[in-house]
Amino acid sequence: MEKQPLILADVYRLIEPGPVVLLTTAHRHRRNVMTQSWHTMIEFEPPIIGCVIGDGSLSFELLMASKECVINIPSEDLAGQVVGCGNSSGRNTDKFRAFGLTPVAAETVAAPLIDECFANLECKVVDTKMVSQYGLFIFQVVAGQISPSIEAKHTLHHQGRGTFMIAGETITLSSSMP
Amino acid sequence: MEKQPLILADVYRLIEPGPVVLLTTAHRHRRNVMTQSWHTMIEFEPPIIGCVIGDGSLSFELLMASKECVINIPSEDLAGQVVGCGNSSGRNTDKFRAFGLTPVAAETVAAPLIDECFANLECKVVDTKMVSQYGLFIFQVVAGQISPSIEAKHTLHHQGRGTFMIAGETITLSSSMP
Repeated sequence: MEKQPLILADVYRLIEPGPVVLLTTAHRHRRNVMTQSWHTMIEFEPPIIGCVIGDGSLSFELLMASKECVINIPSEDLAGQVVGCGNSSGRNTDKFRAFGLTPVAAETVAAPLIDECFANLECKVVDTKMVSQYGLFIFQVVAGQISPSIEAKHTLHHQGRGTFMIAGETITLSSSMP
Repeated sequence: MEKQPLILADVYRLIEPGPVVLLTTAHRHRRNVMTQSWHTMIEFEPPIIGCVIGDGSLSFELLMASKECVINIPSEDLAGQVVGCGNSSGRNTDKFRAFGLTPVAAETVAAPLIDECFANLECKVVDTKMVSQYGLFIFQVVAGQISPSIEAKHTLHHQGRGTFMIAGETITLSSSMP
């Protein structure tokens, strides 16, 4: 998918609405994709994101080993892949191959971007002190790419048990909020 | 608005999709409403939520003093109130009066529920050790109410600068994910 550099000050505009994301990790010869919805913006710029990832998973292991990842944002056409990645384990499945996701080399991290996702946020783990108690990683987004095509951005929002709300229409009200 | 008790194990189904919320706080004779989008689930049950609130605001002050709040979830009909609360300060405005929001006594906390919101999550602050560095509060949801009316649940999702995505249609895929 054709993409252009994402202005880092705009990262919050993608994450704040709460989309399901596909988190990619890699370390040495292993890589993985995880379906993830438990994240929040923490700071606008540099963009800091908090992300909850349970221990025991391959993604947790690769994240702790590499201290890097990519947050890939899928739109509704990837709903099947989102559920597939959420219901399988990277320990016995190469999810890229199993679900037809195309890995693309990132600029700044070893974890691959997912080409089919309309936005990719390359992240470094900058703080792990809340991991043992809460599984909460602190990421700094260091680079990003986004598709210039607006219509690709109907994100998925998980309401539990395989039910997803698909992003609907947008409204803009006069506001001085960032 | 008529509501019924919310099963606490279902809290994540409301928060995980990433809606804008109205956070209410109270301490002694003061109360406030804050528009808030930087939150994440941290644990299913008991439901634990992380919430980022900048210092300097009245809500921050009331939250630190009372260690309690209510997360109220508005639907699209409250977009004007959401923006109004986000663009004013509780230090010189009673936002309940200014924006026609009806406070209702909570069961377990001093902060009022907002009657017009379709769901209300009564929260206790259980951890403040990430507040100084990240503004990140850890809440435990101790009680909740929800409207039985499904059509009220078209939530708002802030994309920045007064633009909101309104929750669209839902799809359900076969999944073993919670």
